[in-house]
Amino acid sequence: MDARKITKVLIANRGEIALRIIRACKELEIKSVCVFSTIDANGVWVRKADESYLLKGDPIQAYLDYKNIVALAIEVGADAIHPGYGFLSENADFAQYCIDHDIAFIGPKPDHIALFGDKMASKIAMKAVGVPVLGGTDQPILEMDAAIRVAREIGFPVIIKAAFGGGGKGMRIVKKEEEFIPMFEAATKEAERFFGRGDAFIEKYVQNPRHIEVQVMADKFGNVIHLGERDCSIQRRHQKVVEIAPSPRLNPKVRNELLRASKKAMFKLGYESVGTVEYLVDEDDNFFFIEMNTRVQVEHTITEAITGIDIVQSMIRIAEGEPLPTMQEDIKFRGYAIECRINAEDPKNGFIPSSGRITTYLSPGGPGVRLDAIGFKDYVVPTNYDSMIGKLIVVGIDWDGVVRKARRALDEFIISGIPTNIPLHRQIMRDEDFKNGIFNTTYLDKKLPTFTLDAIHDIEEDEIKHEHIAAIVAALKNQGL
Amino acid sequence: MDARKITKVLIANRGEIALRIIRACKELEIKSVCVFSTIDANGVWVRKADESYLLKGDPIQAYLDYKNIVALAIEVGADAIHPGYGFLSENADFAQYCIDHDIAFIGPKPDHIALFGDKMASKIAMKAVGVPVLGGTDQPILEMDAAIRVAREIGFPVIIKAAFGGGGKGMRIVKKEEEFIPMFEAATKEAERFFGRGDAFIEKYVQNPRHIEVQVMADKFGNVIHLGERDCSIQRRHQKVVEIAPSPRLNPKVRNELLRASKKAMFKLGYESVGTVEYLVDEDDNFFFIEMNTRVQVEHTITEAITGIDIVQSMIRIAEGEPLPTMQEDIKFRGYAIECRINAEDPKNGFIPSSGRITTYLSPGGPGVRLDAIGFKDYVVPTNYDSMIGKLIVVGIDWDGVVRKARRALDEFIISGIPTNIPLHRQIMRDEDFKNGIFNTTYLDKKLPTFTLDAIHDIEEDEIKHEHIAAIVAALKNQGL
Repeated sequence: MDARKITKVLIANRGEIALRIIRACKELEIKSVCVFSTIDANGVWVRKADESYLLKGDPIQAYLDYKNIVALAIEVGADAIHPGYGFLSENADFAQYCIDHDIAFIGPKPDHIALFGDKMASKIAMKAVGVPVLGGTDQPILEMDAAIRVAREIGFPVIIKAAFGGGGKGMRIVKKEEEFIPMFEAATKEAERFFGRGDAFIEKYVQNPRHIEVQVMADKFGNVIHLGERDCSIQRRHQKVVEIAPSPRLNPKVRNELLRASKKAMFKLGYESVGTVEYLVDEDDNFFFIEMNTRVQVEHTITEAITGIDIVQSMIRIAEGEPLPTMQEDIKFRGYAIECRINAEDPKNGFIPSSGRITTYLSPGGPGVRLDAIGFKDYVVPTNYDSMIGKLIVVGIDWDGVVRKARRALDEFIISGIPTNIPLHRQIMRDEDFKNGIFNTTYLDKKLPTFTLDAIHDIEEDEIKHEHIAAIVAALKNQGL
Repeated sequence: MDARKITKVLIANRGEIALRIIRACKELEIKSVCVFSTIDANGVWVRKADESYLLKGDPIQAYLDYKNIVALAIEVGADAIHPGYGFLSENADFAQYCIDHDIAFIGPKPDHIALFGDKMASKIAMKAVGVPVLGGTDQPILEMDAAIRVAREIGFPVIIKAAFGGGGKGMRIVKKEEEFIPMFEAATKEAERFFGRGDAFIEKYVQNPRHIEVQVMADKFGNVIHLGERDCSIQRRHQKVVEIAPSPRLNPKVRNELLRASKKAMFKLGYESVGTVEYLVDEDDNFFFIEMNTRVQVEHTITEAITGIDIVQSMIRIAEGEPLPTMQEDIKFRGYAIECRINAEDPKNGFIPSSGRITTYLSPGGPGVRLDAIGFKDYVVPTNYDSMIGKLIVVGIDWDGVVRKARRALDEFIISGIPTNIPLHRQIMRDEDFKNGIFNTTYLDKKLPTFTLDAIHDIEEDEIKHEHIAAIVAALKNQGL
């Protein structure tokens, strides 16, 4: 299919990313079409799209049934589909199916989606174009000889992981070659005892890594730019919680190498659209490619904040066959940005997802505050989907100031009726290590036991500080309240 | 009083600027103290300050009784006062009174406030430091000889205005000297007939001027920077409605001259804190100083958006004796910003101020959107103060994109219960002349009769576009709504 102007975009997604794409479409004067499950009928994004169509049936399957979605796109005259993140966004068959039905897929080419969907193949490809990758076996191993050979190839320290297990059983970290044989024996035996099979994966072990990722953007003409890096080390159970751009303590030499390597790799592989190259950076400033996300990411917002470039609009323009919005040398990076993922979950109860009606919803504002959120007073948060109900993004010139801004905005953000993780974010923004930019992927596991996660500052609980409380009540009465 | 750290700021103001100052204090980890009239007891800013105190008595006088406010500041241990804009902000006596009572006044020195509070004296001062000023008489004139002499000195065209009148009576525009005598006679006679006195002011007449103003910032060490210009030509009855930074069609040579002249003048006059130098720019790119505002302005937000610099925080730091937050050459200007003043007024009924309870309040968000607003569902907008209930600020890389963003954000901004001027803003952002950057201070007078000012897109009136309306209702029922 040749490049052509897009006039109407069907959004094959829900929640805040659906709203984000609607906003991009409106700003480009392109019609937006939402699809929604029965559960999502009261979603604010459903109301904000130009057109919205119900997807009957199971509320999760509805968003995954791509043949139905493409048929609907054709029926309503949409000439493009934006998949958002999650759901169908990294499904190469879906992308191909769109193209086969003359619907522009707003994302990379199906071949690239397929390549990067295969972790092993993507490591091989990235290694071939000069990117250091996190070594590891592609197949489970049982034999000692093969295991030692692989471990040597990867280089110590390595981690042995049970192929058919979990929960740390059958897992061993091996720091030196001479420790390998007994450790591998112990791991496979343990795995066999717990899971019935001893087969294990062997991977490079990175201690206290930082998760650093590079935002790339490429057009159909072979132009590639990077938009800087993001530090996503603040994670809970491998889920990002807080993201930062740029990384506050990344060695400038390492940053430069990461950015160049990512951009060069995308150029050599002929990548198109936006994408994120993810790395682990170890304590000695070595970096290792772990995976590539061939879609817009939740945390694209902080890159937009420091560059001023609209990533979602750019994706649409690239899909239309437009060149990149800017040349590398014209990008003006400014300041720091932090994103806090606001989740409907209970930090006092193991972060179990919460659902129900929001009874108070007061959102923060003012300078340097961006809110991408689907909450409002009386919105009923469903249980069926991931728990993220919004993203709070703050931007400022210097790191100290932006952390204080995040704290200020979080203190202003009042949601009641359901528990949220706002108290967790308030604690992170008050933590000395975080304020000093000292964190890696182990940060939250270590800090959580020390945090107070009460819903402070919520209006209902808030002890009113006014001196003249009687006078206030009188004044309210004067106003008829 | 020597410079010293500020620990607690009393905000001698109300509404959105009080909230703005609270946010700046919180980000600087400085305590904030609100004072509020009985009418303002339910203001959201009253709740967000660290401490809030009722000012008894008349709800306007309360904010002007500076001796009472300073006494309260001393009582509660505030070591500084921020006056915001309006009210006491340009009262030199108040500034001096603060200093005399060992309270830091967050603003310029009293002498500068007094100087620029006197229009004639400020023109003389600015002329003396090399700034072209808008010529005019300082005293009303009745005698023809004196009038001709003054008109010649100013240079034609001039405008004759009745000193004790208004509404265009006794007003004449004189393009050439030979027309002056009959015009002046006619004007003074008309003024005498209508107002009982014929005395007139004579001023330089600028046809179709643009209102361009320069944001300046200076510290106690004599360092001065400018933060670029703003175009505030979109006005209704001399009240700014939409402000833009930078001016989209300003001749770069004129911009450069304006910025340099403003900065140099502030340096020569020994100015301190932030301020705005206001000019008219005529159709031939001549510019004339009209006045200087010695305070933070409503529209400081758009300058913050394009520079990333926090102007209110900077004011506080300067008052503490800190140097400027940046050197001129380190300021990274990026993109365009537009501010829409959201007023509680009825565009369908001559813009009369509206008051009453807000019944729906859905605020816009997403990339490049900043909201400084005091509205919320159930807030009762009072009649006692100016009608501005918020400011919507959008920022983007290019002019076209930022206008489309403003439109998108305005379409998302739903306030019902009281009329607002949001429909006016929606029309401006759809107007071809505005989109092309073609406007001057006569723009709104000319455009208003052509605008449709209905409250479009309001949820209550909105014709729901969903195809499967029955299904939505069913789905809402499933959710218990």
